[in-house]
This record gives sequence, C-alpha cells and structure tokens, in this order.
Amino acid sequence: MEPVLFYGVPHGCSFGSIVALEWLGEPYRLCRIDMLSKPEGEAFARVSPLGETPALLLEDGRALTESFAIMHNIGARNLERKLGFAQGTPEFDRLNSVLAYLHTTFHSAFSPAWAAYKLAEGDPNREVLRTLARDKAVHSYEHLQDMVTGREWLAGGDFKSMADAYFIGIARWGEDLGLFDLRKEYPRLHRHMQKLEADPGVIFAHAIEDENPATSSGGFRGHVTLDELNPRLAA
Amino acid sequence: MEPVLFYGVPHGCSFGSIVALEWLGEPYRLCRIDMLSKPEGEAFARVSPLGETPALLLEDGRALTESFAIMHNIGARNLERKLGFAQGTPEFDRLNSVLAYLHTTFHSAFSPAWAAYKLAEGDPNREVLRTLARDKAVHSYEHLQDMVTGREWLAGGDFKSMADAYFIGIARWGEDLGLFDLRKEYPRLHRHMQKLEADPGVIFAHAIEDENPATSSGGFRGHVTLDELNPRLAA
Ligand SMILES: N[C@@H](CCC(=O)N[C@@H](CS)C(=O)NCC(=O)O)C(=O)O
Ligand SMILES: N[C@@H](CCC(=O)N[C@@H](CS)C(=O)NCC(=O)O)C(=O)O
Repeated sequence: MEPVLFYGVPHGCSFGSIVALEWLGEPYRLCRIDMLSKPEGEAFARVSPLGETPALLLEDGRALTESFAIMHNIGARNLERKLGFAQGTPEFDRLNSVLAYLHTTFHSAFSPAWAAYKLAEGDPNREVLRTLARDKAVHSYEHLQDMVTGREWLAGGDFKSMADAYFIGIARWGEDLGLFDLRKEYPRLHRHMQKLEADPGVIFAHAIEDENPATSSGGFRGHVTLDELNPRLAA
Repeated sequence: MEPVLFYGVPHGCSFGSIVALEWLGEPYRLCRIDMLSKPEGEAFARVSPLGETPALLLEDGRALTESFAIMHNIGARNLERKLGFAQGTPEFDRLNSVLAYLHTTFHSAFSPAWAAYKLAEGDPNREVLRTLARDKAVHSYEHLQDMVTGREWLAGGDFKSMADAYFIGIARWGEDLGLFDLRKEYPRLHRHMQKLEADPGVIFAHAIEDENPATSSGGFRGHVTLDELNPRLAA
C-alpha cells in the first residue's frame, strides 16, 4: 500500500507533511487524528508511541515519527523534485539549518500559547503563558523575515523546498492563537506566507484540515481509518 | 583552514558536535564561547546571527548554525565512518527520527530548568520552573530508556552514531541541573550513558569543556580565538 500520513487536527504541525506529499506528486493516503480526543488503543500507539502527529507509515510497514525525519524521507524519494537536496552539498546544509530552526526554536516558541489554549477562559495563567509565547515568537518572526528578504524561498534556490512546506504550517499559529497581526508586524514575511497560501498544495492541505472538498494536484489516494489499517498494524 | 566548531560553555548542547568531530577523525579546530558573558561584536554574529552555539565555520567560509544541520554535515563527510547513513535508506530514516526527537522534545524539556538556573536563589518561580522541566523530562528519559533497551546504540545498528554523540551532551543535564538521580531512576539508560562516558571522544569533550589537558583521538588541531578568526570572518 501507499505510504499513509497520520495528520493531527486542529492546527497540526503535520500540515507541512501534507504539503510536502502534494509537492512530491507520488501516491499516498491520509489518516486523520483528532488530537483533542486522541484515539485509544494499540493501533495508533504502534505508529506513534508518544501519541504525536505527524507519523508516516511506510510501504514496508515501518512507522516513522518526527516531522523532521518525515520531511527528509519525502524529500529523498525524488531529489529531482528539489524538495530536498543531495547529502553532502551546500544546499543540503542550508536546508537542514532552516528546517532545524523551524522544528526547534520556532515550533517551541508557541508551546506556552498552546498550553494556554487548553486552560479555561479566565485562568490567570493564560495571559502569562500567551505573553511568554509572544516574547519568544517575536524573535523567530524577525529572524524568518530576515531570511526571506531578498530571496524567493526560505532555504534559497529557485524552488520551494520542504522548509517552505513546514514553515507555512507553523507560521500561521501566530494569528491562529491571536498573538500577532502578521500583515502589519511582519509585512515581508507575510508576503511570503501569502505566496504559499496561493499554492495548490497548501490550498489542498487547508481543505483536508477543514474537511472541505479537496482537490489534489499530487498523488492523494484518499483517507484510511485506523480501523482499516488495523490488520496491517497488527502484522 | 580546517572547519572550526564554536562550542558553548557551560553545559553546551555543542558537546555532541565535539564528540562527533572526534569520531569522524578529520582535522578540525575549536573556538570557545562563554555563553554567560557572550562575545560582543560582529565576528560571532557573522557566524551565528542568533548568538547561539553550536556553529560550524566551514572550509569555504560558509557558517552553519543549528546542531542538527552540523551533525548532518559531519556525518556526510565520510559515510564509511557510519556516524550518519546514506540518504534514502531505512537507517537514514531511523537516525533522523532519533536525532529529531533529541533536538526537539528532549532538548526543550530542560529549557524551563535553564531559565530557573538564571534566576536568583530564593526566587519563588525557580521551583515552579524546575518542576515543569522535571515533569517533561521524565517522559523523555522513559522513552529513551525504551529506545536503548535490547539494542547497543540509540539509532540501532552496530555502530555508535551522531544520535549517541548528541544524546550524551543533553542527557547529562538531568543530573547537572539536580533534577534526577539517573542511576537509580533509569538504570538501563544510565548504563548506556556510562558506556558513552568511557568513550575517548566523550572523555576528550569533557576535558575541553573543563579546560583540562585533552587528548584527541581524532583530528583536533587546537583552539582559535574570535580575534584570530576575524580576518576570515570579515572577508
Ligand atoms: N517533535 C515532534 C513534535 C510533534 C508535535 O508537537 N506534534 C503535536 C501536534 S503539532 C502533537 O502531536 N502533540 C501531542 C498532543 O497534542 O497530544 C515533531 O517535530 O514532529
Ligand atoms: N536550535 C538550536 C538551539 C541551540 C541552543 O539552544 N544553544 C544554546 C546552548 S545549549 C544557546 O546557544 N543558547 C543561547 C544562549 O545561551 O544565549 C540547535 O539545536 O542548535
């Protein structure tokens, strides 16, 4: 069977993995995981022992966790697509550096705000946590705005890469969480986001997340459920 | 000139990059950065715009930031050494997954405790932050102990890899920060750490951090200062 990506909703950081799969253009399936009422039972734990998304079930039955590793797996499937670059080249270094920054500092900047999101309205810790997240994310938005200044794509080069795919799944959190007005505060970075928001792969990923009719310009072969996957996961 | 690794003290996560360079066995130099009194001026900012360590100044003058990217660069220099694996292989996936976990979830578990470390004794927020770090790191130590159970090295296979190098630089933080008694709480993981602590590359990295006489079993060619590097950085 095609590889199956387990993506989490709402606001999953797996968004970038969906975009990357669309850009790759090879057959794949999706399995939707509601992170707020996480699936019980062994099936999901076999794919993702920590209960996190994204996770990628590979053709040979191996389960791959960690977005960074999934991005690399997708990129390496067809280097001609230029989502990734050949090991040992300067482009590989540059992409790894940007991807690592996005997965570590940028992603984790928002974690206090996600913790706040799970607290009850009126809990006094909410504003403390939101302020902490904003203070951290400010530096990341600035740094990322510098990165895209004078260049077409985040990791450089003439092609959108896995870095742009992952970036657009995380960068939106600033507004999703009501922490930033990105158009006003980071206009040049906001333009980069707008360019990505107009991309068919990104439009597709939003439609999938929102359960709207979704048109794949890649190799999407439909959803599978955990139940349908169960025999394969028990093997 | 040889590549130059900028490593941070005290307790830097650059420790793993020093170990990886030793294991690689090719010529390199080190530049010491005291993170508590960070160097002012343009030289360091040219290498590391965010003022973070590790950073690697490459032979061709490019500066590479982000530990994950540095590890990949070191691994790709000689795949025969088996610190890294060829792009597109299952071993590459597995290593990326472990490295990503260590750089994201494991590394960031400790960040509240590092924030506490910078507060004055007796600040009431100190214990709150330390408890938060312990609660997060507990899950990581458990997960990592499961990972090494029944296998010789973290990313599998018969050889120590970049994952073990990076791991040993971070895993020690639990005790450095006084949060854990690892021997008692995670005896199997502690054995893996003991095995690594007996490795010449790890012994060397400790000696470097502690400014003790250090014997390289790799290609260490000495320290350089930021001042000495200045002409090269200004170029
Ligand atoms: N280090 C992981 C982190 C993934 C992560 O944070 N996933 C979130 C969703 S964005 C998650 O599954 N959180 C667990 C939960 O919500 O219970 C990666 O980079 O893939
Ligand atoms: N995302 C970076 C984080 C590196 C990092 O956290 N470095 C710490 C030392 S362990 C640092 O330089 N912190 C900045 C400071 O102490 O001012 C990476 O993985 O390399």
